[in-house]
Amino acid sequence: MSESEVKLYYKNVSADVIGDEHGITKLEFEDLGDRTSLLIPQINKQRKAGKTPYRDLPYRPQIADQVREVVAEVKDGCEILVVLGIGGSALGNIAVQTALNPYMYNIDETQRTGPRMFVFDNVDPAQFASFLNWVGGKLDKTIFNVISKSGRTAETASQLMIIRQLLLEKLGPDGFHNQVVATTDARAGTLRNIATDAKLRSLEIPDGVGGRFTVLSAVGLFSAAMCGVDIDSLLAGAAAMDEKVSREDFAKNPAAINAAINHHYYNNGKRNSVIMPYSYALKDMADWYRQLWAESLGKRVDLNGRDVWVGPTPIKALGTTDQHSQVQLYREGPNDKLFTFLQVKDFGSDLAVGPAPDCADELGFLAGKNMSVLLDSEKKATEYALLQDERPCLTVLFDKVNAHTVGQFIYLFEVTTSFVGALFNINPYDQPAVELGKEATFALMGKSGSYTSDCTYEQFAEEIRARTDIDEDCLV
Amino acid sequence: MSESEVKLYYKNVSADVIGDEHGITKLEFEDLGDRTSLLIPQINKQRKAGKTPYRDLPYRPQIADQVREVVAEVKDGCEILVVLGIGGSALGNIAVQTALNPYMYNIDETQRTGPRMFVFDNVDPAQFASFLNWVGGKLDKTIFNVISKSGRTAETASQLMIIRQLLLEKLGPDGFHNQVVATTDARAGTLRNIATDAKLRSLEIPDGVGGRFTVLSAVGLFSAAMCGVDIDSLLAGAAAMDEKVSREDFAKNPAAINAAINHHYYNNGKRNSVIMPYSYALKDMADWYRQLWAESLGKRVDLNGRDVWVGPTPIKALGTTDQHSQVQLYREGPNDKLFTFLQVKDFGSDLAVGPAPDCADELGFLAGKNMSVLLDSEKKATEYALLQDERPCLTVLFDKVNAHTVGQFIYLFEVTTSFVGALFNINPYDQPAVELGKEATFALMGKSGSYTSDCTYEQFAEEIRARTDIDEDCLV
Repeated sequence: MSESEVKLYYKNVSADVIGDEHGITKLEFEDLGDRTSLLIPQINKQRKAGKTPYRDLPYRPQIADQVREVVAEVKDGCEILVVLGIGGSALGNIAVQTALNPYMYNIDETQRTGPRMFVFDNVDPAQFASFLNWVGGKLDKTIFNVISKSGRTAETASQLMIIRQLLLEKLGPDGFHNQVVATTDARAGTLRNIATDAKLRSLEIPDGVGGRFTVLSAVGLFSAAMCGVDIDSLLAGAAAMDEKVSREDFAKNPAAINAAINHHYYNNGKRNSVIMPYSYALKDMADWYRQLWAESLGKRVDLNGRDVWVGPTPIKALGTTDQHSQVQLYREGPNDKLFTFLQVKDFGSDLAVGPAPDCADELGFLAGKNMSVLLDSEKKATEYALLQDERPCLTVLFDKVNAHTVGQFIYLFEVTTSFVGALFNINPYDQPAVELGKEATFALMGKSGSYTSDCTYEQFAEEIRARTDIDEDCLV
Repeated sequence: MSESEVKLYYKNVSADVIGDEHGITKLEFEDLGDRTSLLIPQINKQRKAGKTPYRDLPYRPQIADQVREVVAEVKDGCEILVVLGIGGSALGNIAVQTALNPYMYNIDETQRTGPRMFVFDNVDPAQFASFLNWVGGKLDKTIFNVISKSGRTAETASQLMIIRQLLLEKLGPDGFHNQVVATTDARAGTLRNIATDAKLRSLEIPDGVGGRFTVLSAVGLFSAAMCGVDIDSLLAGAAAMDEKVSREDFAKNPAAINAAINHHYYNNGKRNSVIMPYSYALKDMADWYRQLWAESLGKRVDLNGRDVWVGPTPIKALGTTDQHSQVQLYREGPNDKLFTFLQVKDFGSDLAVGPAPDCADELGFLAGKNMSVLLDSEKKATEYALLQDERPCLTVLFDKVNAHTVGQFIYLFEVTTSFVGALFNINPYDQPAVELGKEATFALMGKSGSYTSDCTYEQFAEEIRARTDIDEDCLV
């Protein structure tokens, strides 16, 4: 059986199509190839040296086995699955669920084979209260999957403390133990301690893999498997893409080409990277990509003693919806964006447009056409309009949207990120700038003790308030 | 009774807070005030001359009366409301619904006073098929609100033709007549003709108001009223804001100040405008704003015979979610963004964080704190971290999220858009660049006849295919 594939199409960034000012000429492309080719063996070597353990997730069957084991223990009688996590502990779960389960999954019981699924990656009291009002009477049929490497993330810790109290109150001493699955560090940290202490079922976040690269670990696989996703196929798709993105021949390596083009445009004044799926199913893949790109590539760099701030800004759009919202700007606004469309060849299901009413002959040309043909035409029409205004366009082409192609896509963009990081000569695996806000939250929430050697959390909180408390003179 | 208010807070764009390089100095602010002050009487005069009819929507009680009349006719027995529309015929409806109804509205019947509501602003066959599978047996309890000024928008027309056929098949000759409400031009156009021919209930899209400015007309009010939103309060909120944004004193006019600051930053290298609500309810207001900003302000301008491409790029983010996704980039990436937070003082409901488990003393400082305090702290912490890196921040402060404040917010940003348009010296009310893609779609879908005087739609389709058909040489 030939598997469905995911491929990168890059003709519409070429100078042949959009002209020399904004397009990439043959010479430039050769130069990009020469420079990026040097990085391929480096990146492959790093991977073999164990420095990018996310690359090996498709080849660790014990991860999927552990996930399946916990799924087998809790799936019976589970009608509701709630993921409590944020950032890399949420966006992959949401993206996989939207991609691989029907639009009406949570509402139409005939369209689901697993529990309803909710992901809370925020601490909005009105939102969470609305959910708790509903779930309160169904707690014994609800599994809460709490995901946090450390367990000290303020959002997830607070959610966990609310849920724990509720479960203990409503279901008694075993309520917490029975209804919660912890996905966390294998050995240490606050959530691991809580899991051990309460004898929670638990899964492991692999060492050395940053949150945004964990979707193919237990972080993403547990909720996927609970909701009927074929996780073996997801991992096999990633492995199939691995073969391509490891190729030393630049011309045959889609991650290297994708990275080279993205890096080229960033350096040539197109600092915004718009990802625009023409598929509702792939909509939340754009949010997953936003984190991957922003946290990995938004970095301050020391360039010969001078601070340089780099990083393309990822922007999420959706076709056709945003044709009627953003395309005016995309065509007539500044030419500062690289567009990446996600296009699907076969939607699995289709719908034929009905006949035009007699009084509306002008709609006759739509009658009998399939909706997938309309969506495909809209994508081509938008791309055509952008090309007319010399805007560069990439397309990631999915034969179908299924677990195998979603696995390919995830792996393609993860490895692309590694390549772009190498081209920028930055470390794409850390996120140093996130810390200050986390510590500032701790301070404002009343944490005590030393923040730094010469500043307590209390003093720090005062400084933050002085900067952020409202000054009525500037309020209108 | 003092109403809840929406106010703009702008201290954290000042040079006092973020320094002279990225902040606005007192002198610069005075200069912005001088230049923008000149535009206030102009904009007020345009409005009095009837050139910006969106400004008068809060004062046309017959609109709300007509909406109420149709609601009264169809609400009984309506369990499902489906909006078919795109762009300005969808984003306002979605934004108002998310803002003013509970998170679990569509799932928990105890949390809703109206029908379930769905908005389809796309033509994804898998998504629409999933919905039709579910709704197919409930068509007699479903109202379809089709919204299109012309009725020739390919997406909405196709949806309508599918739904029409389905209703006729399943419910007989009256099915279409009974279950569809058309919101369209008062007199002419394809959808008006269809409505007249099939004797559909109908509402009017006001003359001279572009789609993105119609949320306070029947376009947005019908779905809102169906789902229990107090539309009088929504309109009263807009009118309350109108008083403020008409003030000739720059220092007291929040739209003028907001516009001046946005325009200043665009001209000073911050071409990205990030809107970041710290409220799930306000999340989709960011999508509504994205269209308003992008279509109104993304314009090619002729500057002394030279083409200039202007327009800030609106970017949607969500607090706290995107702290764990975008803040790394927002702090360490290029300083090319202006941030606008939406902050809520009183969430109506709140949740207290439970006690920390005994084995996790380190979480003790969170115990007993309200979730709203955490969310507020996260916002301040993030703002503080951005200010440390000299990133300019505005805040729109909501006392509460209710119909009155949502009306204020909508009107504030609509009028801000008019001011920014005037500062750029562009027409913010047209969208010329959207046409080409629409025509290209028609061509690819098989429309016949003349596209231009020397090109048929068939010839045009061939040209588009030549530009967009896949060339296997560039596919990897």
